[in-house]
Amino acid sequence: MAKLMTLEEAREALLLQASRERLTTSERVALGEADGRVLAEPLHAALDLPPWPNSAMDGYALRFEDWVGVPLPVSQKIFAGSAPAPLQSGTCARIFTGAPLPEGADTVEMQENTRLAADGSVEFTEALQRGRHVRPRGGEAQTGELVLERGTRLGPVELALAASLGAVELAVVRRPRVALLSTGDELREPGSPLGPGQIYNSNRYLLASWLRRLGCAVQDEGVLADDPQQIREVLDSLKDVDLILATGGVSVGEADYLGQILQSSGELTLWKLAIKPGKPLTCARYQDTPVIGLPGNPASALVTFGLLARPYLLRRLGIERVIPLALEVPAKFERSRPGNRREFMQARVVEGRVVLHENQSSAVLRSAAWADGLVELPEGQVILPGQPVRFIPYSELID
Amino acid sequence: MAKLMTLEEAREALLLQASRERLTTSERVALGEADGRVLAEPLHAALDLPPWPNSAMDGYALRFEDWVGVPLPVSQKIFAGSAPAPLQSGTCARIFTGAPLPEGADTVEMQENTRLAADGSVEFTEALQRGRHVRPRGGEAQTGELVLERGTRLGPVELALAASLGAVELAVVRRPRVALLSTGDELREPGSPLGPGQIYNSNRYLLASWLRRLGCAVQDEGVLADDPQQIREVLDSLKDVDLILATGGVSVGEADYLGQILQSSGELTLWKLAIKPGKPLTCARYQDTPVIGLPGNPASALVTFGLLARPYLLRRLGIERVIPLALEVPAKFERSRPGNRREFMQARVVEGRVVLHENQSSAVLRSAAWADGLVELPEGQVILPGQPVRFIPYSELID
Repeated sequence: MAKLMTLEEAREALLLQASRERLTTSERVALGEADGRVLAEPLHAALDLPPWPNSAMDGYALRFEDWVGVPLPVSQKIFAGSAPAPLQSGTCARIFTGAPLPEGADTVEMQENTRLAADGSVEFTEALQRGRHVRPRGGEAQTGELVLERGTRLGPVELALAASLGAVELAVVRRPRVALLSTGDELREPGSPLGPGQIYNSNRYLLASWLRRLGCAVQDEGVLADDPQQIREVLDSLKDVDLILATGGVSVGEADYLGQILQSSGELTLWKLAIKPGKPLTCARYQDTPVIGLPGNPASALVTFGLLARPYLLRRLGIERVIPLALEVPAKFERSRPGNRREFMQARVVEGRVVLHENQSSAVLRSAAWADGLVELPEGQVILPGQPVRFIPYSELID
Repeated sequence: MAKLMTLEEAREALLLQASRERLTTSERVALGEADGRVLAEPLHAALDLPPWPNSAMDGYALRFEDWVGVPLPVSQKIFAGSAPAPLQSGTCARIFTGAPLPEGADTVEMQENTRLAADGSVEFTEALQRGRHVRPRGGEAQTGELVLERGTRLGPVELALAASLGAVELAVVRRPRVALLSTGDELREPGSPLGPGQIYNSNRYLLASWLRRLGCAVQDEGVLADDPQQIREVLDSLKDVDLILATGGVSVGEADYLGQILQSSGELTLWKLAIKPGKPLTCARYQDTPVIGLPGNPASALVTFGLLARPYLLRRLGIERVIPLALEVPAKFERSRPGNRREFMQARVVEGRVVLHENQSSAVLRSAAWADGLVELPEGQVILPGQPVRFIPYSELID
């Protein structure tokens, strides 16, 4: 048997190819529409943020040196959004959270540590600390500074950051166009009755929604007929597609018409991966369009899409950090008979320990729906309870 | 100073209230539109899945007892999607992955462990194992079984599972309608110039996109004017809203018109939370509509929304598991002066250890954009390098 490819080898090969074919077209979208998109240009600060020193507290602003133990009269009141006069020497200013510091003030004391004298002047009851509770001008960003790199995947935090810098719209990478093909004569669509030997196509729903979460425009071609002529017509109709994603064992067996066509029309490589589930993976090209063929078994489609096709697509979008966060968590199980492939199992973290779903092999989708993530069990390695194992939260993968 | 509320106390109080006001209206949506929605009814299996035993491999199906060391003739070829004849005694069937087992067969051997004799009969070169490589009928689900509970948040895996059971549409909880209000006279919208003392409103972008990710319908009211009459008009115009989410220190100070109106028109509670950032939180009602007021500081808005308002909204949707996954990861930092509030800091996991952003206090949004998650540092506790700390991946929080 040919040597199996490790997950890392396969991912490196895919990422190399993806890096060479990064999408270069960008479009400008309004900030409110940019969630989930990827920055096509670096974002630099167009202003100092905050634009002036301001108070982090409700309290009193003063010049630190003016406090010599004698109550200070209040010379002005500064609300957020107002433009204060310079601070009169020997006085303090009533100030509210977010309000700009008056010129001359360098310190804020929170109101809880003050006492109002009968004449309205303010006594500070705790030792003051110079510069305390002041958010300095430019503390978040200084004009011209690089704030978000090209290739940043935008989420609520990044949009808030861009908004705080006054951005109205952002240049984002255009959506990758992915044609989704299912192969398998046994596949029927939900809603139609099942004939003998038939099952409902689930990978289509798995992958269409996942691709959309990754910001892709999905061209769903449904189930391909087992007819070489029709398959060729579908392939030829896929114009301006960045990736053809096929499921259902795109191999070159006697009933694998898609595989046969790909093999005769360009390149086709069949990878045997040292992972379980998910052994076979097809990498091909049809008239210069990359093709990834995932295994048809839902567990395998899930793992190979998450660990290989997802990073590939994110890298096509220009994202550098494409490998999901994995954390070491002690096992609450024993694995006495390790296999020769790295195994990914459906798992939950319960009281700080990884618990496996009891039925990984048959209840493939139910175990995944139950799970909080995948646990990665190295090939050839016995696992004892308490031993740390790598856990990949599904939130890091299905996003 | 009044005793501070712990995060858990505040969350319990909010979840109790949310549980009492679960949204009960549901709507039916097509499977392809249901990503991110929440099941309003339990999903039971409408069929046995798989509907018949099928092969997990390309290989040969046989009756285990028929193999006595003599090659078996091949009596039929079974592709996925076909309806096989019962297996003739003393023969085997060529079978492909996903194809139904013929009646009488109980075992599949993968083709790699077989040898074709000159007469076309098949020899099995390894010891056979009864039942091997057979996916049993009903192994994923049996007719009538509860497959997904009411209150399940639907993602790609759950949609695939529903599709595999033939579901065409699902009953989902209607979207919560959330009115988003910002308060603060200093706030301007990106695109307009900043006057003295003014800043751009970033919380609006943070929360609008985050709320949408949680499946909410957002009614964005922008920045409220500092005018009691106008604020009252806005509040009165919010019909059929499930939650009013306000940012910007909804307090009852002299410039807090929103707080004053809420206090005079119903209930208003100001919570002081023992967390940092994020101390003040407002819980109120305006004419029976719940109001949550988050602090205006972006770091505080981020933490209080993620740890309190998010679970509240998910519970309103009927979801049971609303608390984000936290994992113990060794610290790569030291914290010698613990505070009296639980602290949430922007962190990354680097080589299995938690690293903190160097500028947590000023570069609030930039540190959050840099971070992979929040680390939770208990009140009053010194942290030494190598000591485990709780890490909450942002993917678990901002989803």
